[in-house]
Amino acid sequence: MDAYPERLLNAAEIAAWDIETDVAVLGFGMAGSCAALEAARAGAKVTVFEAASGSGGAAGLSGGEMYIGGSGGTKIQNAHGFTDATEDFETYLTMAGGPDPDRAKIALYAREAVNHFEWLQAQGVPYKGTYLPGKIIEPEEDDTLIWCGSEQAWPFSAHAKPAPRGHTIQFMGWGGGRKLIDIIEERAREAGVAVETDARARALIGDGNGIIGVMIRQNGRDLAVRAKAGVILATGGFCMNTEMLRLHAPEALRCETPIGTIDDGIGIRMGQAAGGRAIHMNEFFTTCPWYPPESLVKGIFVNQAGQRFINEDCYHGRVVRTAVEQAGDKVWLLVDNEIFARPIELAKMELAAVGESWEEVETELHMAPGTISRTVAQYNEHAAKGEDPTWHKAEKWLKPLNVGPFAALSMSPSESYFSYFTLGGLETLPTGEVLDLRGVPIPGLYAAGRTVCGLPRWGKGYSSGLSLGDSSFFGRQAGKTAGTRAGR
Amino acid sequence: MDAYPERLLNAAEIAAWDIETDVAVLGFGMAGSCAALEAARAGAKVTVFEAASGSGGAAGLSGGEMYIGGSGGTKIQNAHGFTDATEDFETYLTMAGGPDPDRAKIALYAREAVNHFEWLQAQGVPYKGTYLPGKIIEPEEDDTLIWCGSEQAWPFSAHAKPAPRGHTIQFMGWGGGRKLIDIIEERAREAGVAVETDARARALIGDGNGIIGVMIRQNGRDLAVRAKAGVILATGGFCMNTEMLRLHAPEALRCETPIGTIDDGIGIRMGQAAGGRAIHMNEFFTTCPWYPPESLVKGIFVNQAGQRFINEDCYHGRVVRTAVEQAGDKVWLLVDNEIFARPIELAKMELAAVGESWEEVETELHMAPGTISRTVAQYNEHAAKGEDPTWHKAEKWLKPLNVGPFAALSMSPSESYFSYFTLGGLETLPTGEVLDLRGVPIPGLYAAGRTVCGLPRWGKGYSSGLSLGDSSFFGRQAGKTAGTRAGR
Repeated sequence: MDAYPERLLNAAEIAAWDIETDVAVLGFGMAGSCAALEAARAGAKVTVFEAASGSGGAAGLSGGEMYIGGSGGTKIQNAHGFTDATEDFETYLTMAGGPDPDRAKIALYAREAVNHFEWLQAQGVPYKGTYLPGKIIEPEEDDTLIWCGSEQAWPFSAHAKPAPRGHTIQFMGWGGGRKLIDIIEERAREAGVAVETDARARALIGDGNGIIGVMIRQNGRDLAVRAKAGVILATGGFCMNTEMLRLHAPEALRCETPIGTIDDGIGIRMGQAAGGRAIHMNEFFTTCPWYPPESLVKGIFVNQAGQRFINEDCYHGRVVRTAVEQAGDKVWLLVDNEIFARPIELAKMELAAVGESWEEVETELHMAPGTISRTVAQYNEHAAKGEDPTWHKAEKWLKPLNVGPFAALSMSPSESYFSYFTLGGLETLPTGEVLDLRGVPIPGLYAAGRTVCGLPRWGKGYSSGLSLGDSSFFGRQAGKTAGTRAGR
Repeated sequence: MDAYPERLLNAAEIAAWDIETDVAVLGFGMAGSCAALEAARAGAKVTVFEAASGSGGAAGLSGGEMYIGGSGGTKIQNAHGFTDATEDFETYLTMAGGPDPDRAKIALYAREAVNHFEWLQAQGVPYKGTYLPGKIIEPEEDDTLIWCGSEQAWPFSAHAKPAPRGHTIQFMGWGGGRKLIDIIEERAREAGVAVETDARARALIGDGNGIIGVMIRQNGRDLAVRAKAGVILATGGFCMNTEMLRLHAPEALRCETPIGTIDDGIGIRMGQAAGGRAIHMNEFFTTCPWYPPESLVKGIFVNQAGQRFINEDCYHGRVVRTAVEQAGDKVWLLVDNEIFARPIELAKMELAAVGESWEEVETELHMAPGTISRTVAQYNEHAAKGEDPTWHKAEKWLKPLNVGPFAALSMSPSESYFSYFTLGGLETLPTGEVLDLRGVPIPGLYAAGRTVCGLPRWGKGYSSGLSLGDSSFFGRQAGKTAGTRAGR
């Protein structure tokens, strides 16, 4: 072994195999655990190699919420009076996929998500079945169904009938993702999956016709792993890799807090070294929990030019991703006394200015006369009539900001809590097969989760639960494909 | 040979070499011709393979203008009273490089650009030596020195002393790039460079330690080319490859007119197949010639929300790249009767609305009351005092838009002339060596021009002549590096 892990090793270079398995799964987060479970159930001998000391990955840090809908709706959606046609679900996912949505994956997921949800329940993932209306980020207790995207907001609502689609694991408080992973891990181990921890992937091994193994570093030793049916890359994205961010998504570096554990992009780079193509590498999710309280949604965001830039009633991450694009280092949420509230402390949004008039607020912010005051005047004029002709905020969130005192809350990528993770990665088929530079599958190479550019691939279209839904469902797909190959 | 050109072939697969050379140069545009010339002068046997029937590439379609400065200024800059410190030139290039400028290349280019310009003259490239003040796109006759970037505009002017840096080949009218290529081609042939046309690169050939050849398709035959000292990729960018655009730079697909000849990204893909890393693949240049006449710079651009989004006195391409990012499909240039003029026909900007008041214009554009009229009121108030506190347009371009009738000229990526080309590509050292996924040079593999992510790597920082300057200078660098290697 040389000091260069990210090249493709040739089988001829391997003197002896230290471990033999059918399917090697790299990474034990949401995608890896689901892939391992399904591969084992398909009859394959499966070994998971996880660089950390245990399962989890970024999913273990999450709220354990899945974006599920279509097929008329889940039983939980239905119980609360919501139906959810596959067509509306598909339309929403397509719009949320940005300028280049993955139509094949979207079509499959839209059709199968409800079945997938029932599968999760069959694995033992508990759902209380309750519904929380309103605009929230995650349930504060152990409730299930929430609105967690831009479904009710323009332009999505104009094209797809909205439904709440966030299905959250029953868990008291934020952070149910850990429990979700624990359950799938337990099923995987029961199914006979072998798990090696502190086991870092260093390089894929090919034989000229495809991928047949992987070199693993564990306890200071390099282990040559023969994986007869192939390797599944599920090592997450690259939000913890500063160099990759600089070279591909430099804007993300302006944000404060990467959401990841290792997430150094090793799976993407190994896939590339094997000939795989990485796409939309500039895309990333970011958000700042600027609501709840939901009264703040009745405020308006302005940039350093005092201009609005979005309908504030869409998903918080869509607002924040758009905010990052604005010229300047900061945006402000303008509120009047009637809706004033403090965002949660985590958000680190400061009260930047208070005044008896909007002119006073703009002076306090050192902004030119007329910048903010004209924007608010314009907004108020239309809001009084229940209209937002420019940005199309829904009527229920419109009210003139005319009850003093007035305030501006600052939100900034560098000073507030801006969490982020990457959305670009390897291109795969719905089966999990990794595509090469020509779009042809590489035999024996599979990937899932944020190693892949999947359903969530556009920061402005992200919705909570989209990455977990994608990772779990397409992790299973990759596991089935590789596992079935083992049996042939 | 299989049907799959973009994988790396192994020398063991090659039965016999059809052509033997020291340095194979792929592509005969600006980068390729300069690389071939320098490699030959360094003593190497050089063969150029060009997929088209002759030299040119995208450079052959250009105006033949180079972005040159630093070292106190060229003789032509000096003759017209301009000095240009290397430090100011370097600062400007760094700002123009966006969030991840290539500092090593910028430092070298800033120091060497004047020498490079003298080298071009020594090759026979003629410069009349005249200077045209004002805001223009290219000289209409055969003049030399022009302002061709955002040097005099905020924020660049606040950090780097401005100088005009566009050095245009002496050529009557637009399109001097063809003449420029002809001259370098002539020098290259004189230096003994062999040129094969209608010769398409299909795959690089490696021996496990680096690149040692290339497979070429010519006259229906595959030719195995042994290139002892390596291969220089100079096949341009990928603006003609719809699939690559979709996967990496989907926003560019909204623009109307790719500027390229073949530019199918083959060099980038072959480089990736050899282990090279492609970076900033989402970045592209676009522009629409919305000025001259320069009186239009006194107008203001607004988006569909009636908001300004830039200081209109910066480089036309910076304005237009920012316009593409605005929500909606269109922006408008607002002018009053005092400055009204038609942009050149090529721009395809339509007179979208005319009115006796700005309220009338906004109604005619079906925009909400107050959108445009408030923006203009705000602008006029400050412009009357010679100020633009929000966007910092320089005082000489400020005047209240208050002399009716008033007009809005529409500019849209799909309906106007929006030319574009890609800026993402392989990462290289200043020597032209292509870096692999770890940032280590790949022996025998070099690249230059828009196959590379070079000095111009940020759509909002592009300046005319930056790509030709980069391609010619770093093409020479790659040629020298490979040519010297041949002699070892």
